Amino acid sequence: MIRRLLEHYKDHPAIIGFQIDNETHPNSSNSRSMHAGFISYLKEKFGSVERLNRLWGFVYWGQLVSGWEDFPSREGILNPGYKLEWERYQRKTVTDFLRWQASIVREYARPHHFVTHNWPGGLRTDVDRYEIAQYLDVAAVNPYHPVQDRLDGWQIHFTGDLARSLKRANYLVMETNAQTIGWDSRTQFPPYDGQLRLNAYSHLAAGANMVAYWHWHSLHSGQETYWKGLLSHDLEPNRVYEEAARIGAELKRLGPRLVGFEPRNHVAILVSLDSYHGIQFMPFDDRVNYLTILQQMYRALYRLKVGVDFVFPQQKDWERYRVLLVPPLYIADDALLGRLVEFVRRGGHALVAFKSGFADEHSTVRWQRAPGPLRAAAGFSYQEFSTLAEPVALKGDPFGAGPENRASVWAEMILPETCETLAVYDHHFFSRYPAITRNRYGRGTLTYEGTYLSDTLQEKVIANVPALAGLNGADQRLPEPVLVRHGASREGRPMRYYLNYSGRPQSFEYPYASATELLSGAPVRPNQMLKLAPWDLAILEEEAPEVSDGARTKQARPRGVQ
Amino acid sequence: MIRRLLEHYKDHPAIIGFQIDNETHPNSSNSRSMHAGFISYLKEKFGSVERLNRLWGFVYWGQLVSGWEDFPSREGILNPGYKLEWERYQRKTVTDFLRWQASIVREYARPHHFVTHNWPGGLRTDVDRYEIAQYLDVAAVNPYHPVQDRLDGWQIHFTGDLARSLKRANYLVMETNAQTIGWDSRTQFPPYDGQLRLNAYSHLAAGANMVAYWHWHSLHSGQETYWKGLLSHDLEPNRVYEEAARIGAELKRLGPRLVGFEPRNHVAILVSLDSYHGIQFMPFDDRVNYLTILQQMYRALYRLKVGVDFVFPQQKDWERYRVLLVPPLYIADDALLGRLVEFVRRGGHALVAFKSGFADEHSTVRWQRAPGPLRAAAGFSYQEFSTLAEPVALKGDPFGAGPENRASVWAEMILPETCETLAVYDHHFFSRYPAITRNRYGRGTLTYEGTYLSDTLQEKVIANVPALAGLNGADQRLPEPVLVRHGASREGRPMRYYLNYSGRPQSFEYPYASATELLSGAPVRPNQMLKLAPWDLAILEEEAPEVSDGARTKQARPRGVQ
Amino acid sequence: MIRRLLEHYKDHPAIIGFQIDNETHPNSSNSRSMHAGFISYLKEKFGSVERLNRLWGFVYWGQLVSGWEDFPSREGILNPGYKLEWERYQRKTVTDFLRWQASIVREYARPHHFVTHNWPGGLRTDVDRYEIAQYLDVAAVNPYHPVQDRLDGWQIHFTGDLARSLKRANYLVMETNAQTIGWDSRTQFPPYDGQLRLNAYSHLAAGANMVAYWHWHSLHSGQETYWKGLLSHDLEPNRVYEEAARIGAELKRLGPRLVGFEPRNHVAILVSLDSYHGIQFMPFDDRVNYLTILQQMYRALYRLKVGVDFVFPQQKDWERYRVLLVPPLYIADDALLGRLVEFVRRGGHALVAFKSGFADEHSTVRWQRAPGPLRAAAGFSYQEFSTLAEPVALKGDPFGAGPENRASVWAEMILPETCETLAVYDHHFFSRYPAITRNRYGRGTLTYEGTYLSDTLQEKVIANVPALAGLNGADQRLPEPVLVRHGASREGRPMRYYLNYSGRPQSFEYPYASATELLSGAPVRPNQMLKLAPWDLAILEEEAPEVSDGARTKQARPRGVQ
Repeated sequence: MIRRLLEHYKDHPAIIGFQIDNETHPNSSNSRSMHAGFISYLKEKFGSVERLNRLWGFVYWGQLVSGWEDFPSREGILNPGYKLEWERYQRKTVTDFLRWQASIVREYARPHHFVTHNWPGGLRTDVDRYEIAQYLDVAAVNPYHPVQDRLDGWQIHFTGDLARSLKRANYLVMETNAQTIGWDSRTQFPPYDGQLRLNAYSHLAAGANMVAYWHWHSLHSGQETYWKGLLSHDLEPNRVYEEAARIGAELKRLGPRLVGFEPRNHVAILVSLDSYHGIQFMPFDDRVNYLTILQQMYRALYRLKVGVDFVFPQQKDWERYRVLLVPPLYIADDALLGRLVEFVRRGGHALVAFKSGFADEHSTVRWQRAPGPLRAAAGFSYQEFSTLAEPVALKGDPFGAGPENRASVWAEMILPETCETLAVYDHHFFSRYPAITRNRYGRGTLTYEGTYLSDTLQEKVIANVPALAGLNGADQRLPEPVLVRHGASREGRPMRYYLNYSGRPQSFEYPYASATELLSGAPVRPNQMLKLAPWDLAILEEEAPEVSDGARTKQARPRGVQ
Repeated sequence: MIRRLLEHYKDHPAIIGFQIDNETHPNSSNSRSMHAGFISYLKEKFGSVERLNRLWGFVYWGQLVSGWEDFPSREGILNPGYKLEWERYQRKTVTDFLRWQASIVREYARPHHFVTHNWPGGLRTDVDRYEIAQYLDVAAVNPYHPVQDRLDGWQIHFTGDLARSLKRANYLVMETNAQTIGWDSRTQFPPYDGQLRLNAYSHLAAGANMVAYWHWHSLHSGQETYWKGLLSHDLEPNRVYEEAARIGAELKRLGPRLVGFEPRNHVAILVSLDSYHGIQFMPFDDRVNYLTILQQMYRALYRLKVGVDFVFPQQKDWERYRVLLVPPLYIADDALLGRLVEFVRRGGHALVAFKSGFADEHSTVRWQRAPGPLRAAAGFSYQEFSTLAEPVALKGDPFGAGPENRASVWAEMILPETCETLAVYDHHFFSRYPAITRNRYGRGTLTYEGTYLSDTLQEKVIANVPALAGLNGADQRLPEPVLVRHGASREGRPMRYYLNYSGRPQSFEYPYASATELLSGAPVRPNQMLKLAPWDLAILEEEAPEVSDGARTKQARPRGVQ
Repeated sequence: MIRRLLEHYKDHPAIIGFQIDNETHPNSSNSRSMHAGFISYLKEKFGSVERLNRLWGFVYWGQLVSGWEDFPSREGILNPGYKLEWERYQRKTVTDFLRWQASIVREYARPHHFVTHNWPGGLRTDVDRYEIAQYLDVAAVNPYHPVQDRLDGWQIHFTGDLARSLKRANYLVMETNAQTIGWDSRTQFPPYDGQLRLNAYSHLAAGANMVAYWHWHSLHSGQETYWKGLLSHDLEPNRVYEEAARIGAELKRLGPRLVGFEPRNHVAILVSLDSYHGIQFMPFDDRVNYLTILQQMYRALYRLKVGVDFVFPQQKDWERYRVLLVPPLYIADDALLGRLVEFVRRGGHALVAFKSGFADEHSTVRWQRAPGPLRAAAGFSYQEFSTLAEPVALKGDPFGAGPENRASVWAEMILPETCETLAVYDHHFFSRYPAITRNRYGRGTLTYEGTYLSDTLQEKVIANVPALAGLNGADQRLPEPVLVRHGASREGRPMRYYLNYSGRPQSFEYPYASATELLSGAPVRPNQMLKLAPWDLAILEEEAPEVSDGARTKQARPRGVQ
């Protein structure tokens, strides 16, 4: 089918590239063929059932398997080691499928054609987008965002930063909100005036090279009747269409200066899909999980106006960042924990959440004091941990979080060795254990959170990490709903987006070098006041190109997207 | 089996009529034979799969069907056009089944025998009771009502008005609460003293010619052990039995004067089962739906002491009413909307809820500005609509609803053309759009609600519809829990029921012509004070027969029920 | 398999007894073989389908069965008689299976070996533990208790009193909390200092002769990774391990004086598994049920510091108690109700909850006024009952329950005959009916609760039962979190446990004869003040043996446990 399609279309002049399939993901299928595929995968990876009996502890409860033909299928499985490997296999089926599709498409594609695939926004845990992106020319996303009073930039930037990080390059928005989204009419929220435009430029500020809408006109029948396009069912121009036309006119004019924008960040968040699943199979809470903590860390950086990249365990060079935030790294082999220790030893600053280092790559808890291989770098060990039945304050509010000075959910009963205690619990029993510690190790530091923090506390603790401490420059003094994103234009000039995520006008002092506001064409001097209308933005490009930076990673640009 | 039963019983002197089956309804079955039946139904109605591919938009998501043998079964279907037609087919199976039963029974029934079928109370959306009633001699219902402190007349009258409207004739209560209802013992609410009697007369006031109980004595075993009869398990007389005996004695005495009571109404509510389902497949809210809005309109009239009939799309003569209330008429063909427009043009007053006119009979949204064929009569169009994330007040409280001045759920972004704006939103963005409009069209008016109103607002808006405006006569001045129902006795004398739905005594002035209170036999003069004990009632029959009214619809009376 | 295991291990010197299987229970399986087994069971018990048609009322809704081959399977059954018998059959499969296992084991066991089986804590309703215990030498339990701030003695004692009552003898704790419990990490609550020890001695105070932990060390993989043992995954000594070591050292020293402790009680609670299920199939509430009322009664006695045994319908000699508490005895044959009446007539004091006597052993409601055979002893009848939509106060707060003076859920509309009315409802309608009654019958009394009482009211009413009235001795004056348990040591000396279920120190006057506090070895004089540290306890053994008591039941002691 793929070959037929490509033979038909490959020479069409309107084709600029190929999107292979759409939002491909596994469906938790446990069919006979999926089971057979899983067995083949296990055979190749582990060799024998005896090895799996041992690795997964099947001796417990008399679950020993005597041969591959008796290997139990996924349904009804309780063993966390099995479940974790099954998730890996599920992800692999998607990677293999898309790699195979891409290889066929490349036989037909012309040199200027790119190959891409588009995922929904947010962090999808059932596909390995980083792995798949290695087989694509450019990453693409389908983000759908809340609008009206719930429009908040963080979700757009989270999705954009993640898409950009997949290939450390500009990405495409293949689909995003036109009028409204949702399969039925419960979530019909057309944007307020200006919001469609703000969202489009938000993506450009995160590194997008294209913003396309789903879709041109609203469908008159079928499942997506209420997933409305730029045109309503009447096919006449309308309020939203007029705003899209304005965006189009602006991009036609400014596109060559905006495309290829490259954000520059010194902070990264480590993403571990394995840890997400490992924790889900042994959850410590019903609402808080790996993903909510990762997002909490991201939102804290967002509020601090600090740009961030995402990095992945299999990625080779994340040691180059100055600060690494590590959501609960529950599942990790010794090598990965070793890299983290080495990152610190060589001068990096790591902020590590509870549960990290606890289990190995088979979801087996280590036969040593927690946090296992991280013990020396963390400067403590623990033998016990406890669910916190009620939230607990940190004694003396050491981070100045006021009414939000609150830990909850989990408390590791930390026994300090070389670490400094940053906070202890205000509690008749747990007060003997630190809640937050910091250890100097080699030339860097490892800050550890043994408990779940309130959003405000998380923000304060992150702002307290050495390389981020004293964070109170011009960016942090911006009005709360205004975000700034720094980077370089394609020509290497420092460029900044100022985005007003509110329905109120905002004003602030521009503190950087002389620049041009690209939308208006007006020159802007240092210390000049800038004003942003509701849901409006400014794009400032400095006049002088930035000084060459040898360490800068070369950026791959998608073919076909100039 | 039917023939065997009838051969055995048809000549028994105790038989007055036949109830065919009990509360028959489809069971959402998707069996092989139901699927085959559906295909036959589709072939006959639509002719070809190509036509359905086009009507239902199957080209979307690659769902095109190439032949009837590949036609997908109901399970997993997302397409709203398919779902809607499936619901019609489900209803048709019941209509066909009961029509077939009735035809067999009529072969055996003697001339004085009637044929009926009994449905539960409320508005059942999975059977077309109006259609089925055309094959019966008399409509019947099985209403079960809340009692004790939750006894409220509206549900009884809603059920009764609906049953009466099916054939525009008196109906039978085949089953209703005796002591308690419910399959288990969580809902054991025996009536307070007087409530059993009040409920029985309430049905008579709505047009019932019989009230029977479920059932004679309580069962000692099985599923309905706690669906208690007039006698408890001890089979001895008891408090509830004594009250039933009093009702029986009264009806034995007064029955000939009470039977055949004919309520007279100028207001009707249009019932569209298709619109209910069409909206359920594309819901605009989790709690508010077609049915809740229809009930809200009914309850508003109930509180205003305005009697109402129900009318149905396939009914020929609903244009004779002065006021027509139209719950969201989401699914409607051009002909039905044309009738509504014509109703207004000729002098009728329509109150139309949001979403009306939006989709055609295949759940396809019209390729024109909403509200489609209603545009000229409504005097506006709209291209956009929005979910309301939070309730919004109407600016300046134009209807005097006080703390209940509140719209919510939905807002159509109305662009007025010839209509008058009755209310706008008090909101930074939506204030530019009317919430409620009225348009004079021909000799009538169309009042339109572009949003969901609070109960109080709905009542105020209905009371503001031209033919109902200035509604503050003697009926509206009655104490709140007292309901009055107007009509004519079988002999053509004006007759009124005054029903006290409260545990407190009530008194009020009787404003009409001289009458006899039938229960006591006492004469009542105009402007005389009437007193009602808790949960008590009065039945007033005027002395002079009413003036003949040529326009009066002839009433069909059930055979066998004198 | 059993024979192979026993042949291998029976002569091993470390074996002291055999636990057959683990927490065996039915799994609601409705497999073909379970259905066949059920049919065989029915044939033997009832003889013919005609008899079941009649007993279960299958004539209703046309459910008559014409032969065993057509007998419907459990799925989809609504009939409560069928459901009740199915539950009995489910329980019987477990009893038969364990009896069979025990008989095989006994072929191999040596004379000093005991045979036991271990159930989870609480009252399991799907196995007949009393019946099964007749085939065992000693009862055992696997209780897991809340700890930290939620540690409360009542659950431990409830489980212990139940285990002891199965054979009226000492029992074994085969598994209980070590560090933490729970299949995942949401419920990780390691005990506060002292709680592990308090829990162990609590079991001894209830009659346990052994306390063992689940389990030695925490598992590194598999389903129970977070069901932590005495050792953590690091296998090193830790805080909890140290406390377990202290318990072990104390028991090594004091064990011979503590083992065989025999509590002495004059109050019993009647357990009816049939009534639990009968009510579940016809529930009167979503939260209150047979089990919650039984537990409410137990907790009231616990707070009153009154020790209690459990008795079972098939047990021969429960007439020896002075007070019998009867949770809703909804399912009972005439013989059982006759024993209850006879218990009262001969001088016993019964407290009986609503719904008692209502249905017979087939879940068939009796064809006579409720409470059926209890009518004369109760001194009233009733024909009606009602769900209470809202809580109702008892008029004049006759039991001094203050803000907790509250009945709810259910009200039987009691018509007094010879009984005294202890309380009526404060309600416009229900005030004509008593809420609580007491009847003198023969030499005893029957106190009846026609409604569901608040916890405080239940406690007050129990404390008002004749043989318990005036209950305000030294035990009742203990500080609230301190429990006392009375009994006799193996040598026949009066012995008492004082247990402090709180994190605060407690002190009180010791009112009994001179004794030795066993843990410290200190002598204690009458009226001396005793002090208990947080989560601590004292064990007082009187110096003189108790006077021989002819009525004392001989205690079976498990073989192998000295």
